[in-house]
Amino acid sequence: MALIVQKYGGTSVGNPERIKNVARKVAKFQAAGNQVVVVVSAMSGETNRLIALAKDVATSPEPRELDVVVSTGEQVTIGLLCMALHDIGVKAKSYTGAQVRILTDSAHTKARILNIDEAPIKKDLDEGNIVVVAGFQGVDEHGNITTLGRGGSDTTGVALAAALKADECQIYTDVDGVYTTDPRVVPEARKLDTITFEEMLELASLGSKVLQIRSVEFAGKYKVKLRVLSSFQEEGEGTLITVEEDQNMEQPVISGIAFNRDEAKLTVLGVPDKPGIAYQILGPVADANIEVDMIIQNVSQDGTTDFSFTVSRGDLDKATKVLESVKAHIGARAVVSDKTMAKVSIVGVGMRSHAGVASQMFRTLAEEGINIQMISTSEIKISVAIEEKYLELAVRVLHKAFGLDVAA
Amino acid sequence: MALIVQKYGGTSVGNPERIKNVARKVAKFQAAGNQVVVVVSAMSGETNRLIALAKDVATSPEPRELDVVVSTGEQVTIGLLCMALHDIGVKAKSYTGAQVRILTDSAHTKARILNIDEAPIKKDLDEGNIVVVAGFQGVDEHGNITTLGRGGSDTTGVALAAALKADECQIYTDVDGVYTTDPRVVPEARKLDTITFEEMLELASLGSKVLQIRSVEFAGKYKVKLRVLSSFQEEGEGTLITVEEDQNMEQPVISGIAFNRDEAKLTVLGVPDKPGIAYQILGPVADANIEVDMIIQNVSQDGTTDFSFTVSRGDLDKATKVLESVKAHIGARAVVSDKTMAKVSIVGVGMRSHAGVASQMFRTLAEEGINIQMISTSEIKISVAIEEKYLELAVRVLHKAFGLDVAA
Repeated sequence: MALIVQKYGGTSVGNPERIKNVARKVAKFQAAGNQVVVVVSAMSGETNRLIALAKDVATSPEPRELDVVVSTGEQVTIGLLCMALHDIGVKAKSYTGAQVRILTDSAHTKARILNIDEAPIKKDLDEGNIVVVAGFQGVDEHGNITTLGRGGSDTTGVALAAALKADECQIYTDVDGVYTTDPRVVPEARKLDTITFEEMLELASLGSKVLQIRSVEFAGKYKVKLRVLSSFQEEGEGTLITVEEDQNMEQPVISGIAFNRDEAKLTVLGVPDKPGIAYQILGPVADANIEVDMIIQNVSQDGTTDFSFTVSRGDLDKATKVLESVKAHIGARAVVSDKTMAKVSIVGVGMRSHAGVASQMFRTLAEEGINIQMISTSEIKISVAIEEKYLELAVRVLHKAFGLDVAA
Repeated sequence: MALIVQKYGGTSVGNPERIKNVARKVAKFQAAGNQVVVVVSAMSGETNRLIALAKDVATSPEPRELDVVVSTGEQVTIGLLCMALHDIGVKAKSYTGAQVRILTDSAHTKARILNIDEAPIKKDLDEGNIVVVAGFQGVDEHGNITTLGRGGSDTTGVALAAALKADECQIYTDVDGVYTTDPRVVPEARKLDTITFEEMLELASLGSKVLQIRSVEFAGKYKVKLRVLSSFQEEGEGTLITVEEDQNMEQPVISGIAFNRDEAKLTVLGVPDKPGIAYQILGPVADANIEVDMIIQNVSQDGTTDFSFTVSRGDLDKATKVLESVKAHIGARAVVSDKTMAKVSIVGVGMRSHAGVASQMFRTLAEEGINIQMISTSEIKISVAIEEKYLELAVRVLHKAFGLDVAA
């Protein structure tokens, strides 16, 4: 008998019909001889509705009270799912984060899980119950309700799987697995049967929004077998996220291609080339809560240099304002920006043992006349910033060049 | 410094603007030198929305899980009200029923309060907080969320006032107090400054739906000073519900007139007049969960009698069916019904010491040609069943006859 933790996101429980569908799915799993713990999110739209209410009563909602309000979203779903299970004759019991108890620190709206008391859940499972746990929430040592921040339901699932030593943690979502790239851009994109945690982290942070990064880190740390599946398909094995690299001889060099459309580039021209200049420019940007992605400092000419970096397009105006005041302060010549940037990244643990991956990437793009404006690399990833209009073309040709297209 | 428990119902917190209004009201009370504990209901419509969701996923929602779902309504309100208080610079802290802890039995959807741990609330009050508690909910000894049933927020308010030994429990609602009768029927109806618990119980059970009966019983038992006020008016003392009768010489005999429109009368004709016959008729009616109100058994003639009683009009069809099968069983002649009945009751503790109240009531109705079909009496109440079309006339003439009209 296997112990499985299944997590269903907001879309999968988005209305009563879908909740009943999840109930049937879960019941089938139990009938097949498994013990099942289910983690659910709030019904889609519910968290946003509650946050909107909070913003209607307070200009800046107090975090402790925001958690009290927002945590009701998942509480409604656990109750509804258990009712639906009872209604088809299956024993089920719901738990809020406080009831489990999922102990967290007291950092309201972004709490971290410290400990989970798995004993009551094990007892319920042994008595034949399906146990349904509210995702995204916990309780601090003083009994205050906390939430883990957006996407925290994945983390709840993985943390429960770790605490219960579950055989597998299954994340049900609206896609049927992790793909080599977005199938809307490359119709030949292939679903991956397996992917490593490291690759998944790079793909997730680069915009393949299948899983919350934090939950993947958590799963990697506690060696939880994590699987991504579709909640809308009856069949399918999804994608298994593994600790070990696939030992298969045919392991491809590149596992997937991630991309992000909403990038913008800022360049400070004529910066005096002195130690500490990067901090003087990026410090105020960070203080303004703007996340910087790729950074390039050109070779110095005549004692000055050009300093470029990318930010989310939504942050461009704010960042430009910050830099205009920095410019005077450090004696730079000008600030210029380009808001039509995109980023493409190839990701794969195979890179480690294969030389020439970068040059193959650059050659492929050059052959299509796509100019590379910035480059950044990590051990298992190479990212380039290009003009946005070339984005789809770049992803398609790289997908083909690295042999990711579906076998004909 | 007084300790006040204030309860605001669903209409009073029905939208963000009203929640902000309650925050201002509560803050003003604290600024005037009081310690304030606030009990809130779910925003109006919210409980019904949650119950509808439950009925969408399960034909017969499991009670434990229904409580998990429905209790979120008040949880949202406590968080929103505390945020609104913080937003105007007032310290506030919210508590769910489980957090307080309001210990109840395990009778889900209709739990009874067993104990309240008042220590954490007192500590918060002493630290200058306004404490906001979710009405209508508690937690059983196993940590399961329970609810007290509809209208339970009033009971939470009174129970908290008793546990905290509060100086007063103020129930804010959409009326400004308890009236001698419904002002929509009698424009001359007067707001009462005080009323006894007993009178309030009779008026409440007879259709003046200002307060939940259970909370009034509770307040009477624990001698909590209870006051009904409007949440939409800045001024006004509302109506104080007292343990002692007003010692004022001018105390009127009658305090108020209650009425109920939706009554129906059933009569079983030609019932053999034998011991146990009332039980043989009413037993099956009770088994069908139909509440019987007034009951009359006529004087026996030739060994048979006619047996009449009233039920809610909505129960008439069901009750008729039950009686049809009872008829054959007990050998009665026929079952007839009248669905256009109404009930009018005069209520007052003054009745105890004044003879002739009943005869004055009957004479007043007779003078208007209103036929009395049934009569029932208690120590402080006389009820009559009449044809519905005479209802307004009856209430008006009785209101005037017993001196309840506003002094000109």
